[in-house]
Amino acid sequence: MKKILIANRGEVAVRIVRACAELGIRSAAIYTDADRHALHVKKADEAYHIGPDSVAAYLNAHRIANLAVATGCDAVHPGYGFLSENAEFAEICARRRLTFIGPSPEAIRRMGDKTEARKTMQEAGVPVVPGSEGNVADVDEALAVAERIGYPVMLKATSGGGGRGIRRCDDAEELRRQFPRVVSEASKAFGRAEVFIEKCIVRPRHIEVQVLADKYGNVVHLFERDCSIQRRHQKLVEIAPSPQIDPKLRARLGELAVTAARAVGYENAGTVEFLVDADGNAYFMEMNTRLQVEHTVTEQVTGIDIVQEQIRIAGGARLAFRQEDVQMRGYAIQFRINAEDPKNDFLPSFGRITRYYAPGGPGVRTDAAIYTGYEIPPYYDSMVAKLVVWALDWKGAVARARRALRDIGVYGVRTTIPYHQRIVECDDFLEGRFDTAFVEEHPELAHYPERVSPRDLAAAIGAAIAAHAGL
Amino acid sequence: MKKILIANRGEVAVRIVRACAELGIRSAAIYTDADRHALHVKKADEAYHIGPDSVAAYLNAHRIANLAVATGCDAVHPGYGFLSENAEFAEICARRRLTFIGPSPEAIRRMGDKTEARKTMQEAGVPVVPGSEGNVADVDEALAVAERIGYPVMLKATSGGGGRGIRRCDDAEELRRQFPRVVSEASKAFGRAEVFIEKCIVRPRHIEVQVLADKYGNVVHLFERDCSIQRRHQKLVEIAPSPQIDPKLRARLGELAVTAARAVGYENAGTVEFLVDADGNAYFMEMNTRLQVEHTVTEQVTGIDIVQEQIRIAGGARLAFRQEDVQMRGYAIQFRINAEDPKNDFLPSFGRITRYYAPGGPGVRTDAAIYTGYEIPPYYDSMVAKLVVWALDWKGAVARARRALRDIGVYGVRTTIPYHQRIVECDDFLEGRFDTAFVEEHPELAHYPERVSPRDLAAAIGAAIAAHAGL
Repeated sequence: MKKILIANRGEVAVRIVRACAELGIRSAAIYTDADRHALHVKKADEAYHIGPDSVAAYLNAHRIANLAVATGCDAVHPGYGFLSENAEFAEICARRRLTFIGPSPEAIRRMGDKTEARKTMQEAGVPVVPGSEGNVADVDEALAVAERIGYPVMLKATSGGGGRGIRRCDDAEELRRQFPRVVSEASKAFGRAEVFIEKCIVRPRHIEVQVLADKYGNVVHLFERDCSIQRRHQKLVEIAPSPQIDPKLRARLGELAVTAARAVGYENAGTVEFLVDADGNAYFMEMNTRLQVEHTVTEQVTGIDIVQEQIRIAGGARLAFRQEDVQMRGYAIQFRINAEDPKNDFLPSFGRITRYYAPGGPGVRTDAAIYTGYEIPPYYDSMVAKLVVWALDWKGAVARARRALRDIGVYGVRTTIPYHQRIVECDDFLEGRFDTAFVEEHPELAHYPERVSPRDLAAAIGAAIAAHAGL
Repeated sequence: MKKILIANRGEVAVRIVRACAELGIRSAAIYTDADRHALHVKKADEAYHIGPDSVAAYLNAHRIANLAVATGCDAVHPGYGFLSENAEFAEICARRRLTFIGPSPEAIRRMGDKTEARKTMQEAGVPVVPGSEGNVADVDEALAVAERIGYPVMLKATSGGGGRGIRRCDDAEELRRQFPRVVSEASKAFGRAEVFIEKCIVRPRHIEVQVLADKYGNVVHLFERDCSIQRRHQKLVEIAPSPQIDPKLRARLGELAVTAARAVGYENAGTVEFLVDADGNAYFMEMNTRLQVEHTVTEQVTGIDIVQEQIRIAGGARLAFRQEDVQMRGYAIQFRINAEDPKNDFLPSFGRITRYYAPGGPGVRTDAAIYTGYEIPPYYDSMVAKLVVWALDWKGAVARARRALRDIGVYGVRTTIPYHQRIVECDDFLEGRFDTAFVEEHPELAHYPERVSPRDLAAAIGAAIAAHAGL
């Protein structure tokens, strides 16, 4: 490979530029009008304007593939989001003789269809959440299924998503009452009345396993990440390894993930997500057929550069290590620095970064898409940086996180930094006790005193004086 | 320990602030007029002005100890340079019931006196460089010793250090000529005229071993660092582990370092420096009874936070690990970012940092004392930041170094960054072949095209227009 087109923007595009540079491969960035001054444009070896349309331009598969061909690229890295799990884009790349840095279109499709993925996993012997196999025809079938799998159950609209068309039912009476409501909601909201039933996993932890697979049938896992700390299914803090998983469960999850990857003939980097209940029962949730935002924590504990491995694998290289060569050391924690106001229900807070101070010192990694003077455009994801800390033990990692979260400085917009500062002071967090209800059960985390930089304070005072004087 | 006074400034003071923060200990910084806006002042929990005198203030042992007592500190960390190897300061601290974070005054004295250190090592069975046993009284004795051990020889000021008061003499004539010069230099620079002679080890590699020792006789080493890349005895690039040391020599050096530390009843962190010739013969050079600038690379490969360990040990804790628990992983390389002009014989280049961009991404650590807008005062060491890279293998570490050295941006002053960019492109470096003559033998490293930031270019053009227009 000589040159890779990065079909993405922001933080992940910068991440891929760095991997390319370390492999001695040229990188070509793409950008819209809104991204003219974005960091990935400055860092890449080449950068091409793909139009004024802020979001659609990054989703224009044909145009991006054309550009890659026209600029002499031999491969395309899709990053995450945008076209990364678009099987058609992978096919278009293949047709244009561009190496798509990711799995085959078939694997993307198979794992992208939740019903198909579930069936494949069941056949491979990977446990899935018990439930109706497919839709339930009526309330009587629903009750029979619920009786078999046991309450509480989740009643879900088949076409639902984003938390809508979904109800928890703790007993038969509630199921009887909710059934017509969910059917009606599904018809109105999604145009289809189908519903299905799943066992409700109480207080689950979100545990996912990173896998790497080459073109020659070699599959290894890089252990797990604990992504239980989420807000409305958006991950906020990610940890490797999970402080609440024992070695036996760790080994089992690793094996299940490798089995899942093999079942779809997986190739390149992927992540198998599980829900793990308090008793250590693991259920397959889904497989993400791309790089994950939180791949960084796995890199910190294993020492393996996952993006470099993606590129090597796509280029036809064999995995240079076997499962027993993959060793973990210490604990890593990633904090997503989002331009959002945690005090105001995480409302996006776009605008100009008046000052950005990167943190430093031992065990601190920053993957940022911002710099002093950068204007965050309002069109994209609000995640603008990732702060990752590492230490030999869990308590040391939390202590380092406390320090690094004071060390980093992002001024001009509101961010999740003060919220993270509260998380790391939380006893439950320090003791490694958290499930997906953590954020919901800790509303006090958003109650912190406002801190304003002296510069912003001065600017605000200046503006007030000017306004008062009628300037 | 509740509060530590940091008797230092700049990068190392910031490093200690971070360790304190992670241990939950308050930090108190000190500063002179010139350092009013220094980063260590901003980062510490408290900061105290110690007077206008830029250098002398940091050397005023009594005043600093008084301040520590007056501000309720229970310990003092001396960092490196300034008072860090001053036995009297350690004594003053002890008298004021301040914990000195470092070894005993006796160990500092014994290792600080090169003749005494040499004798102690010989008695302990640690090989030393053949030479005069103690000082030479006059040029005739010097000539006699040189005749016995063979030329080339090194003529050294007994109280010297940091590359000063040291000359290589290839024959009797040169020794005759240099003798009075070194004596004179020693008197002027260090206040003592004593000199001694050592055999000159040809093409030596500078290999040093980090040790940690607690108050209970437990001594471990954290393997070696290769600091062969030096310019006039000033280290420029430091590496852990050495890519040119085999496991057998590694084990032997580790044992010798532990023996050396035990021989002086050493306590806290220290470094035993060796010269290693091409045949793998190791000779004790000196022991640095303090933290080293290059401790970072050892931290990266062992995962152990050396500054935290220093504080724990001084506080009376036992070492939490045995020798067999100390495991190395990968390779780390540190690049000293000095405000110097490599093209102009490394002339210091002080002034205002117009822009500082920290590097990021996997395997990159920065310990910087600078920020955008910071004015580097002309009174202190020119080292303003350290860039440290890590990867699982040597080639990966060099590739990462290339990338990170393009990623970092320091504008407004000239720095060693472009020089380092040339080092990492050098075949000898990539192949792990270097000794202390590396810099001298690669004069081409300073021949790179000037790169000026657009902002600096614009400023220069603006200034020229203004001057032309007589503004």
